[in-house]
Amino acid sequence: MTSNFVKELTPQLIEWRRTLHALPELGFMEYITTYRIGKELEEMGFTIHVGKDALEKNSRLGLPNEAAITAHEEKAAEWGVEEPWLEKMRGGNTGLVATWDTAKQGDHVGFRFDIDALPINEATEETHLPSKNGFVSGEANVMHACAHDGHATIGLGVAKFISSNSDNLKGRFTLLFQPAEEGGRGARAMTDKGWLDDVDYFYSGHIGIHSMPVGTIAATTKGFLASIKFDVTFKGVSSHAGMHPELGKNALLAATTAANNLYGIPRHYDGVTRVNVGRLTAGSGRNIIPEDSYMEIEVRGETQDIGDYMAEKAKRIIKAAADMHDVSCTIEPVGVTEVLVCDEELIPKIQEWCESSEFVKEVLPSVPVSGSEDASLMMNRVQEHGGKATYMLFGTKLDYPHHHPQFDYEEDVLSVAVDTFVSIIKGGSSDV
Amino acid sequence: MTSNFVKELTPQLIEWRRTLHALPELGFMEYITTYRIGKELEEMGFTIHVGKDALEKNSRLGLPNEAAITAHEEKAAEWGVEEPWLEKMRGGNTGLVATWDTAKQGDHVGFRFDIDALPINEATEETHLPSKNGFVSGEANVMHACAHDGHATIGLGVAKFISSNSDNLKGRFTLLFQPAEEGGRGARAMTDKGWLDDVDYFYSGHIGIHSMPVGTIAATTKGFLASIKFDVTFKGVSSHAGMHPELGKNALLAATTAANNLYGIPRHYDGVTRVNVGRLTAGSGRNIIPEDSYMEIEVRGETQDIGDYMAEKAKRIIKAAADMHDVSCTIEPVGVTEVLVCDEELIPKIQEWCESSEFVKEVLPSVPVSGSEDASLMMNRVQEHGGKATYMLFGTKLDYPHHHPQFDYEEDVLSVAVDTFVSIIKGGSSDV
Amino acid sequence: MTSNFVKELTPQLIEWRRTLHALPELGFMEYITTYRIGKELEEMGFTIHVGKDALEKNSRLGLPNEAAITAHEEKAAEWGVEEPWLEKMRGGNTGLVATWDTAKQGDHVGFRFDIDALPINEATEETHLPSKNGFVSGEANVMHACAHDGHATIGLGVAKFISSNSDNLKGRFTLLFQPAEEGGRGARAMTDKGWLDDVDYFYSGHIGIHSMPVGTIAATTKGFLASIKFDVTFKGVSSHAGMHPELGKNALLAATTAANNLYGIPRHYDGVTRVNVGRLTAGSGRNIIPEDSYMEIEVRGETQDIGDYMAEKAKRIIKAAADMHDVSCTIEPVGVTEVLVCDEELIPKIQEWCESSEFVKEVLPSVPVSGSEDASLMMNRVQEHGGKATYMLFGTKLDYPHHHPQFDYEEDVLSVAVDTFVSIIKGGSSDV
Amino acid sequence: MTSNFVKELTPQLIEWRRTLHALPELGFMEYITTYRIGKELEEMGFTIHVGKDALEKNSRLGLPNEAAITAHEEKAAEWGVEEPWLEKMRGGNTGLVATWDTAKQGDHVGFRFDIDALPINEATEETHLPSKNGFVSGEANVMHACAHDGHATIGLGVAKFISSNSDNLKGRFTLLFQPAEEGGRGARAMTDKGWLDDVDYFYSGHIGIHSMPVGTIAATTKGFLASIKFDVTFKGVSSHAGMHPELGKNALLAATTAANNLYGIPRHYDGVTRVNVGRLTAGSGRNIIPEDSYMEIEVRGETQDIGDYMAEKAKRIIKAAADMHDVSCTIEPVGVTEVLVCDEELIPKIQEWCESSEFVKEVLPSVPVSGSEDASLMMNRVQEHGGKATYMLFGTKLDYPHHHPQFDYEEDVLSVAVDTFVSIIKGGSSDV
Repeated sequence: MTSNFVKELTPQLIEWRRTLHALPELGFMEYITTYRIGKELEEMGFTIHVGKDALEKNSRLGLPNEAAITAHEEKAAEWGVEEPWLEKMRGGNTGLVATWDTAKQGDHVGFRFDIDALPINEATEETHLPSKNGFVSGEANVMHACAHDGHATIGLGVAKFISSNSDNLKGRFTLLFQPAEEGGRGARAMTDKGWLDDVDYFYSGHIGIHSMPVGTIAATTKGFLASIKFDVTFKGVSSHAGMHPELGKNALLAATTAANNLYGIPRHYDGVTRVNVGRLTAGSGRNIIPEDSYMEIEVRGETQDIGDYMAEKAKRIIKAAADMHDVSCTIEPVGVTEVLVCDEELIPKIQEWCESSEFVKEVLPSVPVSGSEDASLMMNRVQEHGGKATYMLFGTKLDYPHHHPQFDYEEDVLSVAVDTFVSIIKGGSSDV
Repeated sequence: MTSNFVKELTPQLIEWRRTLHALPELGFMEYITTYRIGKELEEMGFTIHVGKDALEKNSRLGLPNEAAITAHEEKAAEWGVEEPWLEKMRGGNTGLVATWDTAKQGDHVGFRFDIDALPINEATEETHLPSKNGFVSGEANVMHACAHDGHATIGLGVAKFISSNSDNLKGRFTLLFQPAEEGGRGARAMTDKGWLDDVDYFYSGHIGIHSMPVGTIAATTKGFLASIKFDVTFKGVSSHAGMHPELGKNALLAATTAANNLYGIPRHYDGVTRVNVGRLTAGSGRNIIPEDSYMEIEVRGETQDIGDYMAEKAKRIIKAAADMHDVSCTIEPVGVTEVLVCDEELIPKIQEWCESSEFVKEVLPSVPVSGSEDASLMMNRVQEHGGKATYMLFGTKLDYPHHHPQFDYEEDVLSVAVDTFVSIIKGGSSDV
Repeated sequence: MTSNFVKELTPQLIEWRRTLHALPELGFMEYITTYRIGKELEEMGFTIHVGKDALEKNSRLGLPNEAAITAHEEKAAEWGVEEPWLEKMRGGNTGLVATWDTAKQGDHVGFRFDIDALPINEATEETHLPSKNGFVSGEANVMHACAHDGHATIGLGVAKFISSNSDNLKGRFTLLFQPAEEGGRGARAMTDKGWLDDVDYFYSGHIGIHSMPVGTIAATTKGFLASIKFDVTFKGVSSHAGMHPELGKNALLAATTAANNLYGIPRHYDGVTRVNVGRLTAGSGRNIIPEDSYMEIEVRGETQDIGDYMAEKAKRIIKAAADMHDVSCTIEPVGVTEVLVCDEELIPKIQEWCESSEFVKEVLPSVPVSGSEDASLMMNRVQEHGGKATYMLFGTKLDYPHHHPQFDYEEDVLSVAVDTFVSIIKGGSSDV
Repeated sequence: MTSNFVKELTPQLIEWRRTLHALPELGFMEYITTYRIGKELEEMGFTIHVGKDALEKNSRLGLPNEAAITAHEEKAAEWGVEEPWLEKMRGGNTGLVATWDTAKQGDHVGFRFDIDALPINEATEETHLPSKNGFVSGEANVMHACAHDGHATIGLGVAKFISSNSDNLKGRFTLLFQPAEEGGRGARAMTDKGWLDDVDYFYSGHIGIHSMPVGTIAATTKGFLASIKFDVTFKGVSSHAGMHPELGKNALLAATTAANNLYGIPRHYDGVTRVNVGRLTAGSGRNIIPEDSYMEIEVRGETQDIGDYMAEKAKRIIKAAADMHDVSCTIEPVGVTEVLVCDEELIPKIQEWCESSEFVKEVLPSVPVSGSEDASLMMNRVQEHGGKATYMLFGTKLDYPHHHPQFDYEEDVLSVAVDTFVSIIKGGSSDV
């Protein structure tokens, strides 16, 4: 196997990353992103399973509204996504799975790369590199602010290695390019499709998160939070705010009262808690008592029990806020992530395999985080049938945190991450 | 003059009203409505001043955002509004003024009819007449729920009378078809254009409001509230809600805290107060600490002093809510209405003139209301130079209040209102 | 009858007022006040009905707690209230009724004077006259800040006139010295005792309220609000706030959430509304999740319907706030006042009778107010059986509003008020 | 040294504990408690430093109000605390320090036992042992709900061992019976008096906290939170709530708005946060806009930085709430605890020394907690000059958490704790 593989691939990695960064797409609307990734993989020789073939559509959570989906499909068609591809994705069925079989006895190794962007307006300051170097997001209010452009790129790099070195490899490889990781909405649909059911080793990971320099990676992580996401709709009665305020039932006040109290759910002795009202919209016109309101909420907990505690308290608050203002409410679950536990026996293996890497300088055994990850659903599926799984980190300096309009990372981390997975494949799936 | 004029016009009034009702347009976007009204008036022989010729564009308050305006202009063009008309209105300059000069010595009489709709989703129940009879709003979330479809229709009826009976009339007539009454946004722009500067008598009015049967009208009203409208924008800092909640500055919480406290501004000894947060939007994504939020607010008071008291308290609350959550805020004024005082000497005149009306059964001298009206700005302009002005009411049974999704009125009120103004014209501007 | 009666009485009025002012007592604890008034009346020759003889004890509302009552009874005993008097009042049965029968045919005329003070800490600035002149309240946190010291004084003045001029009078007189007007707690108990059941004419009134100079009085008032008062208790579960916040059920948050939302109950088209959380106590120690909280609330409305609307909304909010924080709550009614309507036919009579007064300069027919008065219950009882009743005002300049720590009034108003009632008695109950 | 010492002492321990439990006293008012402990220690032969001799009075934080102190001093005098003792404590200077010098070369060993109770109303259910066995608190709203009755008892047991075995011991012993641990108010005053300045080894600890059975102890703990406590006073303007709500400036609403927002201070990536509003009082009377309000608050953080973050956020919220309602506010610091780090080198020593104990079954090396402890100030003082310190735990089953009205513990833990410290003394300060 070529030792210079990743070094030679680096310019390509950067190009892939910047291309993806410049055209970010929100979860379940990654039509162009899926198409671009798929075309590359197809060319490499992978078997491609796109959209409805890649996921169990009824297991998707938190779909965008139909109007947004349709509008974006039209845009994708205009942009040039070929009709047969679009056909497979239509209705918010994005993402793809690429499989490779060496036809030689060996482990089934799975990788997951998430590909969706966030509803954030990317910064246009000159100090923001994507802006300075001309690959800033071309979409208003959509941005790759969580490095999934990089994750998809890493996936392409790993694929390239497998296709280029297939003769020296054994076993099977499944690469999941997952839609809608943000909000914990997409993993369940791919998991339920069965891709993980006989995977022996599963690897995923994230750029950044912990403060580690480029070249440092974490073999495992701990501390990912269980999370539960739901949408809330309040329905009251409108009325002329000047003439008849007493006839209205104010759905806005129900939402604001709920929001103010949600952040105050008591902290918990057993561990970390989180709560956020990420979006709130209410009302239709200035002089109308608001009839409708809507909130997007998520709660998290260090354990599943704490997550459940938070969800139960949140629901109690929401229902009481509705009662208080005499409006009705509905609470719709739209996403979930689980607590994840990495297999510690992978630590020494990863450390050993990465020893000869030119890119990986240091392998930390385990690093704490407090985000949420729906790769947890895939890992738990793998582990349930006896497979091993880990969620890794790839260090980079960050001037701004994830989900910030100026979020950016050092592109060198892309090569480090690809070489990490390449080293793992060489170590565990080498035929020679 | 034909005594059967209004009776014969009635089917036409109903047709006009239903046509307008079925295609409602929001304030400063009444392109089709203005065009339709204008075409009728042109045919009747009026001199027409459309859009930029009718209003002082810099005096408009609370314009819709550019994207919405542009989108609606495209729609109006597709619908068939002729380009020269569109040209005069482009950029949110809707509404028109129609003038008629009998060329005989006499008073200058002004009438104001408002033409805009509301952001309310019209009910589709069978019990809702516009729905049952097939003229329900064809626009999602836009509805004539404040009878301005009727007001515009009344204006056309009055115009028809003037044009048909010009030979028997004296003096001049100015009919203002005003955009954007909702929110108190449009009257200033027409007033500042100077149309009212030499008006001797000014009449406007509203369908419904007080519980009076069809046939009963009010010669004057009292109790209209001064109102002040403003938009609020909070700007914080986004952050990953799971990873780094402590790095965010939560603009959503600033808005919800403000909203909850705004409704609690103390009532006032000197008279009626009102406050409403009609719209609130905040945040971009579920797991992001909200960086932005926005509110549309209005306060009202029985006197200008109480209105100012409410506005001052509201601004204090908003600024403190921003401070509390360490975010910045801007408060932009977007609309205003004044207290109005009808000239009581018009009462006996109107009562006398309407005595012979077949449609007007009873003329109440004065009726209390507690809404807000930007016709107040026009009336105050007329009264400043010695003219007389009144704001009248036209009774109808209402099953649902104004601004309700099922708001509707008895169409007979249209004939009553037209005959009221016809009687006033006959009484005050008759040449014979 | 002596024409100089009131002039000569004036120094005595001032002395009475100052004595009462210096030793204020809260509602249902006016032991010393009742005793002092009673001793004067006894000396004048009135038949005295003290405490349990004056009121229906089960009809009292909003009693102070037993500990406070007992402590104040001990204080009253130490101060020198004679045991037989104390005996009649023990347990919060304060106030008295004084009756006088001329034994001549004539009307039964009732007067009501309220005697309780407020839980306010009186100002000690030199600019505050009671302080400067040495009759400031000697009780911490208790103050005659609503002029009931003056009302009781006026009652004594009227009594003095009756006793001094009995030979020239006819009919019967009943003077009610009512406890616990603040909070609308005492009137029902006296009303239910039957004192008003055959009263022909009923007079009560207030010092100040409307801005009128000394010498101006109002024959009737309008606008008094219906009011409903209740106490709320929330009961949660305490927990160590640092160790186990998640085990607590926070009664403080239930109360604060309720309070914040109560002030936001929508205003009402039909008229004036009011709401106040006058007291709130919660929690036991800094590091304990609060288990208990307590609120004293009142709502008011211009009509009984609006009052009921406010009470219903308030109760909904309170119950939902309890639900929201998973605590229980109880709502106990503790006071009520009714809407009152003065008999307008008394206006010309009062105007006529006061014409010859040296003290009354002007009699306004009717003046608007927006307070609440439990004399309303007495008036409504009188009017139910055909009697006539009014609630009057006696003008004085006020530098600070009622219930302010620096509230004070011009003492000349005392003579004006006494002479008003004297004129009424002379006019309606004169035998000559 | 007697091996049966603790076994024989056990009945006495139980008696001490129950006596103290039945008469609990709040922080800085432990007059009787201090006296009782002091009399025992005096009899044992210790040198006693009471009240003003034991603490630096200006370093006390969060003193009760003068009236409460005076009232409790009177009660203590009535109860029988001798005047010379009272004299030394008057003004809230409670607690004492007992010293013992063996006159032989050796380490200076310090112990701290806290003695104050909590403002909780003890449960009277039959299932609550103190109630069933007749030693329930005799004071309304005061209760030993945090085991300080046990801590004081353990201190007496340790003292008894020292005095009984002095001949076999070396070095010096200082026993601090600290007042006002609740709220982190008392430790600073003893620390600033210099008692810890040359202590070589310092031991303190707590009954319960972690779920360990009787017989299990923890040699060290980790996770104690830094805490900052402060009192907040809002000052507004009162007004008649019915007549002139607009003239009031509502201090109650400032407090409730602050409280609701305080609980919502964002959680922190770096570790545990806590916030509590333990008490809130506001307003004076039902129909008065509240002029005054008061809150007792504490915030905690896993590190000093997080504690400071919480305090800064809290102060921002409080000030903004005051601004919002146009009232003034003062924030007074009243207590503080620091993060504490136990010396790990003590772990093997304690494990070794306790090996032969009949009472201690298992010594866990380190156990996590999340409370706050002002013994932290003493430990940090000891460690600053090179001494070693630890904070230990003594296991017991708990049916209810600390600060719960039914809090209770197994009395066997008292013997375990005494024998732990006896074993430590035997191990480290034995002369033989």
